[in-house]
Amino acid sequence: MASKFYAIVIGAGTGTGSAAARRFAKSYPVVLMARSPASYQDTVDGINASGGQAVGVNADAADPASLKSAFDRIRDELLPGHRLAAAVYNVGANFKRAPFLEAKVEDFDGSIAGNARGFFLFAQQTIPLLLESVDAAPPYPPTLIITGATASMRGAANCAGFAAGMVARRALGQSLAREFGPRGVHVAHAVIDGAYDNVNGGVEDGKLDPDAIAESYWHLHTQHRSAFTQELDLRPYVEKF
Amino acid sequence: MASKFYAIVIGAGTGTGSAAARRFAKSYPVVLMARSPASYQDTVDGINASGGQAVGVNADAADPASLKSAFDRIRDELLPGHRLAAAVYNVGANFKRAPFLEAKVEDFDGSIAGNARGFFLFAQQTIPLLLESVDAAPPYPPTLIITGATASMRGAANCAGFAAGMVARRALGQSLAREFGPRGVHVAHAVIDGAYDNVNGGVEDGKLDPDAIAESYWHLHTQHRSAFTQELDLRPYVEKF
Amino acid sequence: MASKFYAIVIGAGTGTGSAAARRFAKSYPVVLMARSPASYQDTVDGINASGGQAVGVNADAADPASLKSAFDRIRDELLPGHRLAAAVYNVGANFKRAPFLEAKVEDFDGSIAGNARGFFLFAQQTIPLLLESVDAAPPYPPTLIITGATASMRGAANCAGFAAGMVARRALGQSLAREFGPRGVHVAHAVIDGAYDNVNGGVEDGKLDPDAIAESYWHLHTQHRSAFTQELDLRPYVEKF
Amino acid sequence: MASKFYAIVIGAGTGTGSAAARRFAKSYPVVLMARSPASYQDTVDGINASGGQAVGVNADAADPASLKSAFDRIRDELLPGHRLAAAVYNVGANFKRAPFLEAKVEDFDGSIAGNARGFFLFAQQTIPLLLESVDAAPPYPPTLIITGATASMRGAANCAGFAAGMVARRALGQSLAREFGPRGVHVAHAVIDGAYDNVNGGVEDGKLDPDAIAESYWHLHTQHRSAFTQELDLRPYVEKF
Repeated sequence: MASKFYAIVIGAGTGTGSAAARRFAKSYPVVLMARSPASYQDTVDGINASGGQAVGVNADAADPASLKSAFDRIRDELLPGHRLAAAVYNVGANFKRAPFLEAKVEDFDGSIAGNARGFFLFAQQTIPLLLESVDAAPPYPPTLIITGATASMRGAANCAGFAAGMVARRALGQSLAREFGPRGVHVAHAVIDGAYDNVNGGVEDGKLDPDAIAESYWHLHTQHRSAFTQELDLRPYVEKF
Repeated sequence: MASKFYAIVIGAGTGTGSAAARRFAKSYPVVLMARSPASYQDTVDGINASGGQAVGVNADAADPASLKSAFDRIRDELLPGHRLAAAVYNVGANFKRAPFLEAKVEDFDGSIAGNARGFFLFAQQTIPLLLESVDAAPPYPPTLIITGATASMRGAANCAGFAAGMVARRALGQSLAREFGPRGVHVAHAVIDGAYDNVNGGVEDGKLDPDAIAESYWHLHTQHRSAFTQELDLRPYVEKF
Repeated sequence: MASKFYAIVIGAGTGTGSAAARRFAKSYPVVLMARSPASYQDTVDGINASGGQAVGVNADAADPASLKSAFDRIRDELLPGHRLAAAVYNVGANFKRAPFLEAKVEDFDGSIAGNARGFFLFAQQTIPLLLESVDAAPPYPPTLIITGATASMRGAANCAGFAAGMVARRALGQSLAREFGPRGVHVAHAVIDGAYDNVNGGVEDGKLDPDAIAESYWHLHTQHRSAFTQELDLRPYVEKF
Repeated sequence: MASKFYAIVIGAGTGTGSAAARRFAKSYPVVLMARSPASYQDTVDGINASGGQAVGVNADAADPASLKSAFDRIRDELLPGHRLAAAVYNVGANFKRAPFLEAKVEDFDGSIAGNARGFFLFAQQTIPLLLESVDAAPPYPPTLIITGATASMRGAANCAGFAAGMVARRALGQSLAREFGPRGVHVAHAVIDGAYDNVNGGVEDGKLDPDAIAESYWHLHTQHRSAFTQELDLRPYVEKF
């Protein structure tokens, strides 16, 4: 009997997380993870109402026990017998602009916790599952996708803590791509380079469309292993860069 | 009446060029350009035989007159009344490894001519056509895709001239993306990071598959303008990087 | 009366830290910081014995209270009335190679603590002091120098946690350079790109020489503000890159 | 008898070229190259008047015959018996901003010729001389320094041709560093990141100071081979980046 596969999106409460869940739900049952149901329930209901299969699980990416418990529930209760086809790390933490001398070390800690440590822990849960899927005739190479940002590429002024977490997350992804690519797991990082709160003067389509982002995430997942993308950027056509 | 659209691939004689032509031919009539019919005729015949529409045109990207004449023929004879939906610059020139002190300036000149100057000229022909398509209700944003290589990113030892041409081509693409993105033309650069002559020890799928590359080119073309990719890398899963 | 200036090196127990202290001691009294006297005492003694002025202070960069106490001692006891001319962050933490699935989150935490959080805290102590020095007729622009590594630039396989800390440190430095450069403080990052345990086959000078590194740190400090360097790389001539 | 060494600066007619010549003239006889005496004569006279030794030679970097003739004159007439200690490539060509569709291919060609092909040819003349110096007990490792610019790093809008030449020049330098570093020749690239025509609102020292740039060039030359810099950036403290 053919294996059954599923996808996970953590950080499911944002536009991108919700859109990714809806996109992957066209092909897989999807698990949405966030710290509280308020973040994922509407998307879960929407997917189920439109013929897909979705379930929400509470989890805090930066808390190893919370994360482990969520994965145990998936395995034992929610989707027993299923294998992981794709995982999306979409947690965003502590973006704020502040002069460095007014920033608190807690801001730094919060950015690291959600943007990097949480990804480290999430990868430690998902990589073994993705490796198991490699030989189980998955429809596409098992995939771990990371949502990045402009701050994943450099540290801007007044943005030190956030950038620290985001560049660390990107580097973790690079390490994993280099270690697990040769074993068949596709690790890809998407640099979302557009401010959500700056709609480029209100010009049409000047704002990132989460569904468009999700479409590229799906493309990354479907890439053949002879031509994996490790990193791509995504930005509105009118964005300066 | 709805506009009719077509695609162009120049450098159609390589595996990637042929695969891109076949992929875009699923949706558009395709023009294949190369310096001689030997490079494109088999692909043209194959597309036409399988229900697509393809035509070959002789053109030397580095020769302005040759290029202009080819575009005039497309407009006047081959596909009158059609608009350009997508163009792929896939010319590869003068890749050779040689100690710098044994290299000739003609190697440098040849790399610049085919890898960068040819792209400059091709872009001067295609960008006006792509701009005209923006307002003609194209199925996807008009797109200019550039095939890059590992040498587009840095200059390796014994590879100076080739790298010079390839980084120049990438920078031209960045300039065009920044200038014409806001006007609705999508300019994207794909870093093909895998040696075709090094099959990673013969491991399965260890070699770049042109059809897989072409699939990502097609994805780039279909991206919504709210989330354009300017650059992505493509490499076999087993490739060191 | 002219202001008196001093320099600080934290992470003074390594070859580079010791060499930087000795180099800056040719022009300034120098404070060496490390977690224990074993790390700095020999260098302190050597500087004092050869006509320079040096003092050691215990401090743990990742511990805010420890760090604050050290800076209070400098101000109140060790070098009262002096102004900070230059500070070098040279703490290195938790470099180890391990397969990702064998790595512990404590390895990640340790790398972040020493490589990034410690720098965040050190910068919050030193930036205000460097800003105060800007208008006090310092011999050179007040300078904050960060020791980086190959892992500051990308995440290699089996090296995820270390890279996460090092790229975060680099991004913090970029943020500070952009914020405080225009206010006259020079923030520079040196990418030390050579493995200390790989002496390039034993070839002469194939190993990084800490005194050579220190010479470039001193050059960074002496740069005129019309031409600041934010980043340079330093590697043995035989190193592959 | 100890060898006698000299330095060359080509593109000697700009502020940076002139300043580099004056800086290196503190330690070496200096050859200034440019297309006409108007570009170098004042600097030559100034160096000679202040106790240094300088000579000017007409040469067009992009013309192999002109360049060869200039090097022959240095060897046979101007500085017979001397060895090359350092060479600076400072030629700048065809910087202009123009919409891409108004740019002419001659602008592209001119940028490539002066910014990249000229460097290729200059390196083919100087690298053999620098290699000969490696074993002749030079005061510092023989050095080839390349003046770069913001456009060496990426292609901005309306700046395609200039960027193409500058990124190609940078890549050539990277290739040479990787090939000749292990043989003892130091190849370094300086990214001069500041517009000369934008003095940052007239703020003091907001404009690049050629003498400050030259000081860093000299530092690059004096670096020990155990810690070579391949690339550094240089920008005014107030510059946005």
